[in-house]
Amino acid sequence: MTLKIGVIGTGMIGRDHTRRIQQVLAGAEVVALSDVNLASAESVRADLAPNAKLYQTGEELIAAPEVDAVLVTSWGATHEPYVLAAVAAGKPVFCEKPLATTAEGARRIVEAEVAHGKRLVQVGFMRRYDAGYVALKDAVQQHTGAPILVHAAHRNPAVPEAYVTPMAIHDTLIHEIDVFRWLLDDDYVSARVLYPRNAARSHGKLRDPQVVVLETKKGVLIDVEIFVNCHYGYDIQCEVVGEDGTARLPEPMAIDMRLGAKRQSRILTDWKDRFVASYDVELQDFIAAAAKGSATGPSAWDGYAAAVTSDACVQAQESAGQAVAIELPARPALYE
Amino acid sequence: MTLKIGVIGTGMIGRDHTRRIQQVLAGAEVVALSDVNLASAESVRADLAPNAKLYQTGEELIAAPEVDAVLVTSWGATHEPYVLAAVAAGKPVFCEKPLATTAEGARRIVEAEVAHGKRLVQVGFMRRYDAGYVALKDAVQQHTGAPILVHAAHRNPAVPEAYVTPMAIHDTLIHEIDVFRWLLDDDYVSARVLYPRNAARSHGKLRDPQVVVLETKKGVLIDVEIFVNCHYGYDIQCEVVGEDGTARLPEPMAIDMRLGAKRQSRILTDWKDRFVASYDVELQDFIAAAAKGSATGPSAWDGYAAAVTSDACVQAQESAGQAVAIELPARPALYE
Amino acid sequence: MTLKIGVIGTGMIGRDHTRRIQQVLAGAEVVALSDVNLASAESVRADLAPNAKLYQTGEELIAAPEVDAVLVTSWGATHEPYVLAAVAAGKPVFCEKPLATTAEGARRIVEAEVAHGKRLVQVGFMRRYDAGYVALKDAVQQHTGAPILVHAAHRNPAVPEAYVTPMAIHDTLIHEIDVFRWLLDDDYVSARVLYPRNAARSHGKLRDPQVVVLETKKGVLIDVEIFVNCHYGYDIQCEVVGEDGTARLPEPMAIDMRLGAKRQSRILTDWKDRFVASYDVELQDFIAAAAKGSATGPSAWDGYAAAVTSDACVQAQESAGQAVAIELPARPALYE
Amino acid sequence: MTLKIGVIGTGMIGRDHTRRIQQVLAGAEVVALSDVNLASAESVRADLAPNAKLYQTGEELIAAPEVDAVLVTSWGATHEPYVLAAVAAGKPVFCEKPLATTAEGARRIVEAEVAHGKRLVQVGFMRRYDAGYVALKDAVQQHTGAPILVHAAHRNPAVPEAYVTPMAIHDTLIHEIDVFRWLLDDDYVSARVLYPRNAARSHGKLRDPQVVVLETKKGVLIDVEIFVNCHYGYDIQCEVVGEDGTARLPEPMAIDMRLGAKRQSRILTDWKDRFVASYDVELQDFIAAAAKGSATGPSAWDGYAAAVTSDACVQAQESAGQAVAIELPARPALYE
Ligand SMILES: NC(=O)c1ccc[n+]([C@@H]2O[C@H](COP(=O)([O-])OP(=O)(O)OC[C@H]3O[C@@H](n4cnc5c(N)ncnc54)[C@H](O)[C@@H]3O)[C@@H](O)[C@H]2O)c1
Ligand SMILES: NC(=O)c1ccc[n+]([C@@H]2O[C@H](COP(=O)([O-])OP(=O)(O)OC[C@H]3O[C@@H](n4cnc5c(N)ncnc54)[C@H](O)[C@@H]3O)[C@@H](O)[C@H]2O)c1
Ligand SMILES: NC(=O)c1ccc[n+]([C@@H]2O[C@H](COP(=O)([O-])OP(=O)(O)OC[C@H]3O[C@@H](n4cnc5c(N)ncnc54)[C@H](O)[C@@H]3O)[C@@H](O)[C@H]2O)c1
Ligand SMILES: NC(=O)c1ccc[n+]([C@@H]2O[C@H](COP(=O)([O-])OP(=O)(O)OC[C@H]3O[C@@H](n4cnc5c(N)ncnc54)[C@H](O)[C@@H]3O)[C@@H](O)[C@H]2O)c1
Repeated sequence: MTLKIGVIGTGMIGRDHTRRIQQVLAGAEVVALSDVNLASAESVRADLAPNAKLYQTGEELIAAPEVDAVLVTSWGATHEPYVLAAVAAGKPVFCEKPLATTAEGARRIVEAEVAHGKRLVQVGFMRRYDAGYVALKDAVQQHTGAPILVHAAHRNPAVPEAYVTPMAIHDTLIHEIDVFRWLLDDDYVSARVLYPRNAARSHGKLRDPQVVVLETKKGVLIDVEIFVNCHYGYDIQCEVVGEDGTARLPEPMAIDMRLGAKRQSRILTDWKDRFVASYDVELQDFIAAAAKGSATGPSAWDGYAAAVTSDACVQAQESAGQAVAIELPARPALYE
Repeated sequence: MTLKIGVIGTGMIGRDHTRRIQQVLAGAEVVALSDVNLASAESVRADLAPNAKLYQTGEELIAAPEVDAVLVTSWGATHEPYVLAAVAAGKPVFCEKPLATTAEGARRIVEAEVAHGKRLVQVGFMRRYDAGYVALKDAVQQHTGAPILVHAAHRNPAVPEAYVTPMAIHDTLIHEIDVFRWLLDDDYVSARVLYPRNAARSHGKLRDPQVVVLETKKGVLIDVEIFVNCHYGYDIQCEVVGEDGTARLPEPMAIDMRLGAKRQSRILTDWKDRFVASYDVELQDFIAAAAKGSATGPSAWDGYAAAVTSDACVQAQESAGQAVAIELPARPALYE
Repeated sequence: MTLKIGVIGTGMIGRDHTRRIQQVLAGAEVVALSDVNLASAESVRADLAPNAKLYQTGEELIAAPEVDAVLVTSWGATHEPYVLAAVAAGKPVFCEKPLATTAEGARRIVEAEVAHGKRLVQVGFMRRYDAGYVALKDAVQQHTGAPILVHAAHRNPAVPEAYVTPMAIHDTLIHEIDVFRWLLDDDYVSARVLYPRNAARSHGKLRDPQVVVLETKKGVLIDVEIFVNCHYGYDIQCEVVGEDGTARLPEPMAIDMRLGAKRQSRILTDWKDRFVASYDVELQDFIAAAAKGSATGPSAWDGYAAAVTSDACVQAQESAGQAVAIELPARPALYE
Repeated sequence: MTLKIGVIGTGMIGRDHTRRIQQVLAGAEVVALSDVNLASAESVRADLAPNAKLYQTGEELIAAPEVDAVLVTSWGATHEPYVLAAVAAGKPVFCEKPLATTAEGARRIVEAEVAHGKRLVQVGFMRRYDAGYVALKDAVQQHTGAPILVHAAHRNPAVPEAYVTPMAIHDTLIHEIDVFRWLLDDDYVSARVLYPRNAARSHGKLRDPQVVVLETKKGVLIDVEIFVNCHYGYDIQCEVVGEDGTARLPEPMAIDMRLGAKRQSRILTDWKDRFVASYDVELQDFIAAAAKGSATGPSAWDGYAAAVTSDACVQAQESAGQAVAIELPARPALYE
């Protein structure tokens, strides 16, 4: 009855997911580990999963008979082949975002899964499992009336020099791209990027902040401020404006203090702390579905839609305020 | 049509009220000034009321034919005789708190006014004119159901060595004593004082903080924390708990900022800033009533009730947690 | 020493400003009234200013020797000639927005005032006097670092059928247009309008909501949601994002209640209540400057800049998401 | 490596804890069940723990060799004998509150555990595991300075007729009694109860609301409003006032909405929802310690202190506002 999981890629997030399965969640255990850096896999085994077997390659791990389900937490560029292999093996697979580094890659996974005829893939868009977004979606469905506008912000205190303009889409906006499709139950039709002057703390290869404007099929207009050198903290804001009223994403819990002539409460500074609880929920969801041989939550189709949208946003970054169209093929019945 | 006002006592608050009448409010002008310190009266005349006449004594000012109404803003110990003189002269008089330094003194004013047969006296309990308390009273009457409990706090950053335990009642709690009678439309029946350990920033002659517990005729239980060395700011809190729900006094307007990993908004530190707008409203109210030869707002009876209650609270400070009864004679018809 | 004011146009706001001068503010009185609808002027005289003289025309009122300063509160189309006449007469004039119905009209007033060589005109952009915006400007200057983005919303519960798309600029956005120039101490260089689907409560001749995007000379990007059929209330939002942090306009004071399984506080529904206190402050400012024969606060130049910007925004409404340039001539020295 | 747990009492909370162990938490499984109502135990086995063995009595379950650790979730009156039996068997035992129905009963457990020489007992005071209280304790230790006052409220929408005055202590205040000892790292020295008039929704055998005032050894004064017919919701409030400032318990996460002229967010109405997440954390803590043959978290000593304090509070309910002393014997070294 315990789901036996193999983990490919035992870096930061692979290690953390292993800890989750071994020490926090019910119903699963990590029985296999693999990493191109063998020492990394060995260290995770020693610290967290002493009974796990080590595999030289992800492919061998996927093929191993004791492995019921697979976690792909290696570098992004390696996700596509591992997910395809898991699908080919008929094993449920949880793949950290991105599902693939190109829209075509994600498309190939969709096609493989459709050919397989049953969902096997869950993509690691954990915000859908965040209690705040879940409550927001409920508020929108129960109270605000049909959405018309979304105002959002994704702020981060600072980024290294290596972070360049397109990463604001691929590494940062990617979570809003997915979570708003889910929140609104809608698809995007265009993207536009507007820039104010650059922040003084940004650098030559990064336009920061930027405002991405997305339009949806149902006519919702979304503006997202991305500001990765905002200095003051890691801050995720989202307000939905509907026919009857508005609803906002809650702030993370913080103690309201009165000190030194200031009413004050802490703001997070590390993105890792912001959605930490949602990782538990997403993996619990994966375990429950995988135990039945299937997958639920963010799908390969969602991963593909996110990839197509990301590409359009990056193109819009170079399009001087013009809208770039976003087109998706018909959604396969598997994902209705 | 312009009300002609004489001001007795041109210190801090006398000067400020003169400025208010001359530069802010409609319908009145300061035509007479008096202060035992003549230089003070002269300076106020020079700065704010060049046409005003100076009087050697308050009694002469009250008697002056050009004076329609009187402001008594001299030291507390001098209030009673001036107010009695104004009542004797049949002139409306605004008296800063306290109405008198003893309950008997306040009683004498009540009797004089009752004998006069018409209200002439307004006491300077300005909180009743604060937009926050006014809105709170409205919320209690419209929404919370009949009050059962009040939780309150009166916090001040620091006091000088000269501030001793009874001043926590006479100088600090006095405003809550009046404003809660008005807010609840009720009278007190007992007072009790409870002490935690002394705050490190307090001193040998001051028990600080303290919690005063008042009971009303209608059975409302009120607890007020008085903490005059609270360090962090000047902070007035009030929550009313009624049959159907609760209502809180609003915080003073402050900008919500996000800076340096903190969500923050300023807290006032100087009591003078907290109810500054209400002084304008109370004096405008005085001007309107005095123009018709009468007075409205906090009455001599309210000043008397506050004096009786203060005395009981001071006695309760020495009574080791025992309740001290508060009794008022029957309320004269003039104050119904 | 009392400023003698003549009021042209005694409708809703003219009556209210007369009340303000007569009953609330110090230092001025209304001595003359005029309205094309004589009955209206007579009624205001009867209710509020019994000593005021009635004039058949605004021109006669302006010329009257007892009139020190003029309030123009007639319909928008009549503002320009009255303001020009007041400037010609060398009398300080407070003009409700709009200064003129065309940019050229406003320009003519600027030229007349510049020719006169001294400021005489104050435009009724009262938000600059709102305590919330004043505190916000202070927070931006003291704490947030130089502004980069502004996110704003102007929401109104419902509008009549007669309200058509361009009115969202001329009657609604106009206040943001002025107040953000002042808040940021900056000028606009372009405007763009984006539309989501129409709200169900809007009608065929009104695109509602809409998002206006303004860029400034200093590179600040401003997005303003205008939603005049938002249903839930009259709600003005503004968040400034600077180099070091953010600051938000405070909510209007409201009592925080707990009732019926909801924490709740009232939202205003009538725009008249939102900035009611700022009208007092703006007129007090006018009285103070006019008493010295001059004017301060929002200038004819500001009125002109607002008119030019409005025109660009209306053009942008028809430009399918394209930016429309905004150009102002050099600012005359009088307005530095 | 999986901890094998036996559950005695499979009613509401016993069932819920079984679900937790079987479906949510890592590291344990329920292998034995017992209830005087056999059908209840059978139903829990069927729904949640098909491999568990049923026992006729709690004593047999405790003695069963496959049982590593015990959960006592039967009626309060049965806790003491089961906990004593578990201690006698040297097995870690999690006991829902109350540890015993009398202080002497709790004392016997303390003595048995001390005699055993090692901690085995954890009491189900789950608030210590609530993220809000944990953050509050951190704020107090890091920021507010040493505590001087605590203002708290425990409000519940309604209670049945069977709920009488002493239950306000035993069933309601009991959680504050424990969590404030922990929050302040302190012990109580006296209790006092003050009553306003009864709420209209209360009944003849229940004084409601009431205010319990506790004093601690370190001199902290705590006031707790207990209002079990407050009507509007289930609401737990706590503010700590320290030498340098204050800190408040956060509100439960709720979506801030703007609807129908109200800013609003939901308040819980069912106590079961308020600390639901903390049950997971407390049991995870139990599993971790029990896996090492010991116990952590709220101890038998804490359960005893809570029982002694409850008794004093109930006595204070009958003492007309007088303080009742609270005395504990010296704390055994095991609990330092
Ligand atoms: N959902 C989220 O919020 C979130 C957060 C962090 C990371 N991620 C995603 O998780 C993935 C991993 O991120 P990380 O931060 O753990 O990176 P990391 O560099 O810490 O770890 C990646 C690990 O994968 C290993 N690896 C690389 N190629 C491999 C291969 N072909 N086979 C086996 N192992 C291989 C590396 O040796 C490394 O140990 C990325 O795709 C990232 O985008 C998602
Ligand atoms: N309502 C409030 O919040 C509030 C605030 C401040 C002061 N007050 C009250 O106002 C009164 C004055 O306070 P203040 O802070 O202005 O004090 P202050 O010492 O600054 O001024 C008092 C003035 O009265 C003058 N004076 C004293 N005796 C006089 C007399 N017999 N005749 C004429 N003048 C006399 C003094 O010379 C002095 O100039 C006090 O009773 C105080 O409690 C009320
Ligand atoms: N700053 C603000 O927030 C604000 C608010 C309301 C109105 N306003 C502005 O104030 C002006 C008046 O608005 P209102 O709501 O009071 O309108 P209103 O229609 O109630 O009143 C206008 C009055 O002007 C009179 N009038 C028209 N033409 C005249 C003329 N040539 N000479 C003399 N009187 C004339 C009309 O008879 C009427 O009595 C408008 O320009 C409006 O935009 C500004
Ligand atoms: N920490 C909390 O917040 C919290 C919440 C709820 C309940 N509790 C405590 O948990 C305990 C149980 O509460 P509940 O709400 O689940 O009650 P319940 O009545 O739903 O369940 C109690 C179960 O115990 C069984 N039982 C009674 N005597 C027994 C015995 N001698 N041996 C075996 N089983 C026996 C009953 O048949 C019943 O099935 C109580 O002590 C209560 O105070 C604590």
